[in-house]
Amino acid sequence: MAFFTKRYHPPGTEPGTLIELPAAEFAPLKIRLIDYNADELTIKEDMQAIDCQSFIQNESVTWIHVQGRPTEAALRELGEIFNLHSLALEDVLNSGQRPKIEPFDDQLFVVMSQPIMVNDLVEIEQVSFFLSSTFLISFYERDFVPFEPIVKRLRDNHSRLRSRKIDFLLYTLLDVVIDQGFPVLENFGQQLEDLEEQILTSANRNTLEKIHIVKRELILMRRMLWPQREVINQLLRGDLELVHDDTRIYLRDCYDHTIQVMDLMETYRDMTASMLDIYLSSVSNRMNEIMRVLTVVSTIFMPLTFIAGVYGMNFDRSSPLNMPELGWHYGYLLVWAGMITIAVSMVAFFRRRGWL
Amino acid sequence: MAFFTKRYHPPGTEPGTLIELPAAEFAPLKIRLIDYNADELTIKEDMQAIDCQSFIQNESVTWIHVQGRPTEAALRELGEIFNLHSLALEDVLNSGQRPKIEPFDDQLFVVMSQPIMVNDLVEIEQVSFFLSSTFLISFYERDFVPFEPIVKRLRDNHSRLRSRKIDFLLYTLLDVVIDQGFPVLENFGQQLEDLEEQILTSANRNTLEKIHIVKRELILMRRMLWPQREVINQLLRGDLELVHDDTRIYLRDCYDHTIQVMDLMETYRDMTASMLDIYLSSVSNRMNEIMRVLTVVSTIFMPLTFIAGVYGMNFDRSSPLNMPELGWHYGYLLVWAGMITIAVSMVAFFRRRGWL
Amino acid sequence: MAFFTKRYHPPGTEPGTLIELPAAEFAPLKIRLIDYNADELTIKEDMQAIDCQSFIQNESVTWIHVQGRPTEAALRELGEIFNLHSLALEDVLNSGQRPKIEPFDDQLFVVMSQPIMVNDLVEIEQVSFFLSSTFLISFYERDFVPFEPIVKRLRDNHSRLRSRKIDFLLYTLLDVVIDQGFPVLENFGQQLEDLEEQILTSANRNTLEKIHIVKRELILMRRMLWPQREVINQLLRGDLELVHDDTRIYLRDCYDHTIQVMDLMETYRDMTASMLDIYLSSVSNRMNEIMRVLTVVSTIFMPLTFIAGVYGMNFDRSSPLNMPELGWHYGYLLVWAGMITIAVSMVAFFRRRGWL
Amino acid sequence: MAFFTKRYHPPGTEPGTLIELPAAEFAPLKIRLIDYNADELTIKEDMQAIDCQSFIQNESVTWIHVQGRPTEAALRELGEIFNLHSLALEDVLNSGQRPKIEPFDDQLFVVMSQPIMVNDLVEIEQVSFFLSSTFLISFYERDFVPFEPIVKRLRDNHSRLRSRKIDFLLYTLLDVVIDQGFPVLENFGQQLEDLEEQILTSANRNTLEKIHIVKRELILMRRMLWPQREVINQLLRGDLELVHDDTRIYLRDCYDHTIQVMDLMETYRDMTASMLDIYLSSVSNRMNEIMRVLTVVSTIFMPLTFIAGVYGMNFDRSSPLNMPELGWHYGYLLVWAGMITIAVSMVAFFRRRGWL
Amino acid sequence: MAFFTKRYHPPGTEPGTLIELPAAEFAPLKIRLIDYNADELTIKEDMQAIDCQSFIQNESVTWIHVQGRPTEAALRELGEIFNLHSLALEDVLNSGQRPKIEPFDDQLFVVMSQPIMVNDLVEIEQVSFFLSSTFLISFYERDFVPFEPIVKRLRDNHSRLRSRKIDFLLYTLLDVVIDQGFPVLENFGQQLEDLEEQILTSANRNTLEKIHIVKRELILMRRMLWPQREVINQLLRGDLELVHDDTRIYLRDCYDHTIQVMDLMETYRDMTASMLDIYLSSVSNRMNEIMRVLTVVSTIFMPLTFIAGVYGMNFDRSSPLNMPELGWHYGYLLVWAGMITIAVSMVAFFRRRGWL
Repeated sequence: MAFFTKRYHPPGTEPGTLIELPAAEFAPLKIRLIDYNADELTIKEDMQAIDCQSFIQNESVTWIHVQGRPTEAALRELGEIFNLHSLALEDVLNSGQRPKIEPFDDQLFVVMSQPIMVNDLVEIEQVSFFLSSTFLISFYERDFVPFEPIVKRLRDNHSRLRSRKIDFLLYTLLDVVIDQGFPVLENFGQQLEDLEEQILTSANRNTLEKIHIVKRELILMRRMLWPQREVINQLLRGDLELVHDDTRIYLRDCYDHTIQVMDLMETYRDMTASMLDIYLSSVSNRMNEIMRVLTVVSTIFMPLTFIAGVYGMNFDRSSPLNMPELGWHYGYLLVWAGMITIAVSMVAFFRRRGWL
Repeated sequence: MAFFTKRYHPPGTEPGTLIELPAAEFAPLKIRLIDYNADELTIKEDMQAIDCQSFIQNESVTWIHVQGRPTEAALRELGEIFNLHSLALEDVLNSGQRPKIEPFDDQLFVVMSQPIMVNDLVEIEQVSFFLSSTFLISFYERDFVPFEPIVKRLRDNHSRLRSRKIDFLLYTLLDVVIDQGFPVLENFGQQLEDLEEQILTSANRNTLEKIHIVKRELILMRRMLWPQREVINQLLRGDLELVHDDTRIYLRDCYDHTIQVMDLMETYRDMTASMLDIYLSSVSNRMNEIMRVLTVVSTIFMPLTFIAGVYGMNFDRSSPLNMPELGWHYGYLLVWAGMITIAVSMVAFFRRRGWL
Repeated sequence: MAFFTKRYHPPGTEPGTLIELPAAEFAPLKIRLIDYNADELTIKEDMQAIDCQSFIQNESVTWIHVQGRPTEAALRELGEIFNLHSLALEDVLNSGQRPKIEPFDDQLFVVMSQPIMVNDLVEIEQVSFFLSSTFLISFYERDFVPFEPIVKRLRDNHSRLRSRKIDFLLYTLLDVVIDQGFPVLENFGQQLEDLEEQILTSANRNTLEKIHIVKRELILMRRMLWPQREVINQLLRGDLELVHDDTRIYLRDCYDHTIQVMDLMETYRDMTASMLDIYLSSVSNRMNEIMRVLTVVSTIFMPLTFIAGVYGMNFDRSSPLNMPELGWHYGYLLVWAGMITIAVSMVAFFRRRGWL
Repeated sequence: MAFFTKRYHPPGTEPGTLIELPAAEFAPLKIRLIDYNADELTIKEDMQAIDCQSFIQNESVTWIHVQGRPTEAALRELGEIFNLHSLALEDVLNSGQRPKIEPFDDQLFVVMSQPIMVNDLVEIEQVSFFLSSTFLISFYERDFVPFEPIVKRLRDNHSRLRSRKIDFLLYTLLDVVIDQGFPVLENFGQQLEDLEEQILTSANRNTLEKIHIVKRELILMRRMLWPQREVINQLLRGDLELVHDDTRIYLRDCYDHTIQVMDLMETYRDMTASMLDIYLSSVSNRMNEIMRVLTVVSTIFMPLTFIAGVYGMNFDRSSPLNMPELGWHYGYLLVWAGMITIAVSMVAFFRRRGWL
Repeated sequence: MAFFTKRYHPPGTEPGTLIELPAAEFAPLKIRLIDYNADELTIKEDMQAIDCQSFIQNESVTWIHVQGRPTEAALRELGEIFNLHSLALEDVLNSGQRPKIEPFDDQLFVVMSQPIMVNDLVEIEQVSFFLSSTFLISFYERDFVPFEPIVKRLRDNHSRLRSRKIDFLLYTLLDVVIDQGFPVLENFGQQLEDLEEQILTSANRNTLEKIHIVKRELILMRRMLWPQREVINQLLRGDLELVHDDTRIYLRDCYDHTIQVMDLMETYRDMTASMLDIYLSSVSNRMNEIMRVLTVVSTIFMPLTFIAGVYGMNFDRSSPLNMPELGWHYGYLLVWAGMITIAVSMVAFFRRRGWL
C-alpha cells in the first residue's frame, strides 16, 4: 500500500470542483440499475445516468451502482439528475478519503474503506454511497464485485432484503464492506502465526522484512478502517430520519463487527511489536553463541602457539641454560603433554563457566 | 491460543443465516433443563428442545443449558420455540465473538468469554446467554462443566439462589464465568515469578520463549476479556427491566471482579515488558563478560608470541649486531623474565582498569 | 511483593460465603473499642464483639478497630451484631482487594490499600472500613499500628477530632492510610537518586537488578493505589448522606494527597525507564571502549608477528635472493627499525582516527 | 525547523503590549484591500490602513490582507481603526502561537499554522485573521502568496465566493491554509517510501540521519497543526453568530481535512518508529554477518598456524622421540594433508552449523 | 532538581497543623504591603502582619507579599488576622505542593509552581496566593523577585492595572509565574539543538549524560507544571464570584500560555527520546566500523603469518619432498609474491563486499 494515497485538488481550488483525473487503470465506467420491491425486480446493466431518472419516482427501492473510475462529466451529470451535493461528488472523485458520514439536506453521503488482499498485501478501496428516501447510489472503482452476493439475494423472491426499505439495503452493503475485513485479518493472523513459528525456529533476514511489512500494512490499514466505527455509530444512534428503527438492530450487529475488526488489528500490532523484540534477541543470541564458541577456540590455541613459538627460538644451545629441554630425550613429548594439559584445562574451565 | 479464532460467514451472507459448521471436536449436543422455585426443583438431563416449552409457562425459574456445539437445525428449532432472534443465534454459532450485551424486544442476549488453562496455555471459550422474564438459556461448547457448583447450590433447598428471581441466576452464572479469570491469572502470576527468578539467576534461550508466550497469551486474553467490564456495567447501570435492584448489589461485586481481572492483566503485561528488558541486558552483560575475558587473554599472549617469533628469526649470527642475546649465557632466562614481566604488567593494568 | 496477592473463593462459590483461611502469620485477633464525644472518652482493649453492641446505641462516636486476621466465626458474629452485608465481609476476609467504596443500605463499606516498607520492599496491606451513622468499624491484619497517632489525638480533650462527627473520624483514618504513601515514595526517591549516581559513575550488574526491582515495586504498588483516588473522589463529590459538608473540605485535602502520590509514582516510573536506557548504554559504551582498545593492541602486533615469522623461514641461504637481509651486518637492527616504524605509525593512525 | 519558535515578551510585561521586533527578514509590510459583492469587485494594492476605513461601512465584503511582518506602529494604527483587541494584536506580533480561536465582543480572532516546504524541511508560518460582520483582516509574514488562487476566484464574476457572506471568505482562507498540509505530507510520504526502500536494500549512516530528521519534523509539525482541528470544530459547532448555517456544511469539509492531515501525521510517526527499528536491526544483522565470517576465517587459521609453529620447534633431532616426522620422507606432505583435513573439516562443521 | 521535593507531616498529624521547619537557606521573612486604587498608591516594606489589618478595610486593592520561608508563628498570626484556613496555611508551609485552586468560604487559595533556571538546571518554587474581595496575599520563599515588573507597572499612574479590580492583580501575578516557563523552555530548546548537533557530528559519553539530564528535568518539571492548566481553567470557567467577566478575557490568554508551555514540554520529551535512539545507533555504528576495520586487518595477516610459519618448519631437507621451495633460487621471492597476491585479493574481496 502506498504511504500517501489521498487524491487532492491544489490548495485554493473552489470547493466542489470536479477535475478530470488521469485515465484510470481500473475498469471503464459501468452503471447498473436494480429496482425492486417485495413483488418485482428489475436489473438493468450498462444504463445511462439519464435513463435512471424515471425509476426513482416510483415507490420501489432503486439501487444504482456505478463501477469504475467516474469521469468529471459523468459525475456532474449524475449530480444534476439526482441532486447530489458538489462537495460530496468531489470526495467521490478524490478517492482515498477517510470513512465518514455527512448529511446533505434530505440525502446521506457515506464513505467507507474496503480492504482487499492483492498478492498478500492489503489495498484499501473507497466505496461511496448516496442514500435518499427513494434511491441509493453506490460508487466503487475496482473491477472486483463484492456486491454480487447481494444481487443474488435480491433475485431470491423470498429474501428478507426484498421486503425491506432502502435503509436496509444500505445496511446490507455496509455490512459487506466491513466484513471484507475478516478474511484480510484472517490472512494476517495466518502470516503472524507463520512468522512466530519462523522466529522461534529459523529466523533469517527475510523474517525481519516480513515483520516490518505486516506492521506497516496494519498501520496503514488501521488509519483507513478506524473511522468506520464512528460512521456506523452515527447511523446507529444518530437522529437520521432515513434510518428506521428495525434496521438499527442490524446496524448494531454491523457496529459489533467494526469493533471486532479494530480489536484484531490492535492485537496484531501488539503482536508484531512483541515479535520484533523476540526476533532481535533470537538473532542476537544466536550470533553471541557463535562468536563465543569461535573466540573460545581462538583463545585455546593462543597459548599453544606461544609455546610452539618459544621452542622455535634460536638460542645458542652451547649455554646449558638456553632451553635444555630441546636436548632432552623426552623433550618433545613433554611439551606435547604440557600443551594438551593446557588445552584440556582451558576447555574444562570454559565448560564449567558455561562459556562453551 | 490461535491468533484468529473468530468464525464468520462469507461477506455478503444474509444476516442471521445459520450455516452448518464442520463436525466439532467437542462433546455432542446435550440439553439440560432445571426448573425451580423456592419450594421445588426439577432437573432433567438430555431433554429435547420441544419438551422444554411446557416449563417456561409456569412462574418458576427455568434454566436450559445447551452443552456442545449446536447444529444449525438445533439452533433453528430452539430459536422458533423460544422466539430467539436470528442475529443472536448466528453469534452463538459463530463463536469467537467479543463479550457483548444486546437487548432484543423482551429478551437480553449476553456473550461472555471464559478463559481456561489447557496445558499452561490459555484458551478462551464463548458462553452465551438468553434471558427472558421466564427462562434463561445458556450455551457452552466444551465438555468441562464450570456450572456444576451452581447446580449443587440449587439442589440445596436453603440456598439464597432458590428464592431469587431469574436475573439472580444470570448474575450467578456471569460471576462464575468471570471468576474463572482468577485461577488463570494466579497461574500466570506464578509463571512470572518463576521467570523473574530465572532471569536474575540462570536465564537461557528458553526463558525468552517463555516470556514471549506469556506476553502473547496476555495480549490475546486481554482482547477477549476487556469488553466484559462493559457488559457488566450495562447490566449494572442500564435501564434493563429484566434486572432488579436487589441483584444490582451483586452485579457491583461482579463488576469489581472484572476490573480486578483487567488490572492484573495490565500489570502482568507491564511486567513482561520489564522482564524482557532485564533478560536482554542480563544476557548481553554475561556475553560481554565472557568476550572481555577471552579477548584479554588473547591480548596478553599477543606480544609474548611476537617475542618468541623474534628470537625464532634466522639472522646470521656471524654479525655481532644480529641478536647477540641468542648467544648469551642467561639469554633464554632473560627472555622468559621479560615475557613474564610483560604478562604480569598487562594483567595488572587490566585489573586496575577493571577489565579483568 | 508477590505478583498475585488476591485471595479468592473457588469460582461458583455462593457470594458472601465466608471460608476459614489457613492460620495467619499475623497477630491474633484483637478488638479495641473507642467511644467518644466532645466531653467523654472511653477506650477498651480486647473487647468481645457482643459487648460492643451497647455502645452503638448512644449518640457518641463509636470506633471499633479489629486487628489481626479475622476468623470466619468472628466475622459472622460481627456481621450479625452490626448488620454488615455478607458481600462486604467476604471482601474483608479475601484481602488483596482493590480500593473501592460501596454503599449498602445505610452503611458505607470502604476498602483502602496501605503501603508499608518491609526491608526496602513495599508491601500493600488492606484496610477496610464500615461506616454507619453511629459506628465505624476498621479492619487491619498487621501488627503494626498506624492508627496510634489518632488514638493519641483522641485522648486530647481539646482536639478538633473529639468535637466532630463520625465522618470526620473516617476522613482522619483515610488520611493516615493515604499519607503512608509519602514516606514510601520518599524512600523510592532516595533509591532512585542513589541509582542515578551509581549509573553515571560505577554501574554494575547489581544496578540492573535494583532498577528492575524498583520498577516492579512501582508497577505493583500503582495497581493497588491508583483506585484510591476514585474512592476519595466519590466520598468528596458523591451524594452520600453519611458525609457532611464541613468534612468535604478536609476530604479535598485528602484527594489532593492521593493525586500527589500517583503523580510521584508515575514520575518515578518514567525515571526508571530513562535510567534503564542510560544504564544499558553506559554499560555498552564501557564494554565497547575495552574491546576497542584490546582489538587495537591485537591488530598492532599482527603485522609485527608476521614479520618475525618471515625471518624465521628456513630458506636456503645459498641462493642470494633468499632473504639476503639475514646476512647483513645491520639486518637485525633494520628489521627492528621497520617493526617499530610500523607499530608507531599504526598507533598514530588509530590515535588520529580516535580509535585509541 | 527551530525547536523554540515562539516569540514572547519578558514575563511581567503588561498584557497587550506591542514591542518592536528586530527588522524582519521577510517582505516589507504591504496592505491589499479587496471589496466585493455579487456584482462589483474592487482590488487595491499598497493601501494605507487609514484609507481602508471607508470601505468597511458599506454592505459589501471587505477583505484586508496585511503581508510582511507588521511594525508596532502599524499594528497600533490598525487596532485603533478597526477596534482590534490589544491581546489579539500581541499574538499577531509574537508569532509562533498555537492555532486558536478567540471571540472578542463582536469580533472573532483566529490563529492558524501554515506548513510550507523550504528545502525539504518544513517551516510553520502563522496566519492570523480578524473577522467581524463587515470586514476580514488577514496577517501573513512571508512573501509567498498562498491566497492568490482565492483572489483569482474572486475576479471571476460567476464564482460562488462572490455571492456569499464574509464567513464564507473566512472558510475559504482557512481551507487554503489547511490544505497546504497535503503537499507537505505527500512530500513526507515520498521521503518515507524512499527511506523504506533504502533501509531494505542499502542502508547507510545517512539513512539514520534522514529518519531522525523526518521524525523531528513530524514531531514539531504535529505540535503546530494539532490544535487546528479544535479551531475548526469550534467554528463548526460553536454558537458563533458570525458563522452562518450554510457555511457550516463547508466547514465540515474543512474539519474533515484537518483530521486527515493529523491522521497522516500520526501514521507517518508510527512509520518512522518502525523504520528506525528495522534500520537498526538491518545494520546490526549486516555487521554480525561480516564479523561472523571474519572470525570464522581467523579461527580456521588458528590451529594451522599452531601446527606450523610446532614443526618450527628446534628440538634436538638426535633423540628419536623428538619430532621424528621431520625426518620422514613424506613428512611435509603428511603435515599438509593433516592441515588441509583440519581446515576442510572446520569449514564443513561451520557450514553445517550455519556459521558460514 | 531533587526527586522528592515535597515536605510533609508524619502520617496521622492533625490536619492544618503547622510544624516549625528547619532554618531555611532562603531569605529571612519580609512582608511588603501595596495598597492602591486608580488615584493613590501606598508601598510599605518590612511591615508587621498586624499593621496590615487596617489597610484591608478600605475599598482600595491591598496586596501583601510575604517573601522568605514563613515561620510557624508568622503563619499562625497571618492566619488569625486575615482569617486564612489552617489547611491552606499547612500547604504554604509544606511547600512542594502541586498547583491547585481551593475555595474556602469567601476566599480563594491558589498554589502555583514557578520554574527557574539555576546553573542550567531547573528548580521549581512554590508560589501561593490567598484572594479575598479586599486583599491578595502572596507567598514566595526565594530571594529572587519575579514580581518587580508588576510593582513597576503599579507605580505608573496610567497603568491599566491600577484601575482594575483585585482579581486582575491575581491574573497579573499568575501570568508572571506561568510566563517564567518560556525562558526556561527556550533554554532547553537551545540545549536540545546543541545536543542534536553534537549527536550528528561528535557524540561522546558526555552527550549521553546530558540527554539523560534534560529528559529527567523535563519529567520532573512536567509533573509540577501540568496541573497549572487546570488551575487557570477553573478560574476561567468556574463559577467563582471573585473573578469578574472582564478579567476572564485575560485569563484566557493565560490559559493559552499554560497550554503552550505543556505543548513544548511534551514536544521536547519526544525529542529527547528520539535523540537517545539516534545517539545509541550513532555510537554503535561508529564502534562497528572500527571493529570491522580492525578485524579485517587481523584477518588479512592471519594466512600470511601461517605461510611464514610453514616455511619456518624444520623438515629434514634431505628428503626432496620436504619443502623443496626452500632450496629454490627464487623461492623466497615466490613466497612473497604468493603472500602479496593473497593479501591483495583479500583486500579486493573485502572492498567489493563493502566490508572495508
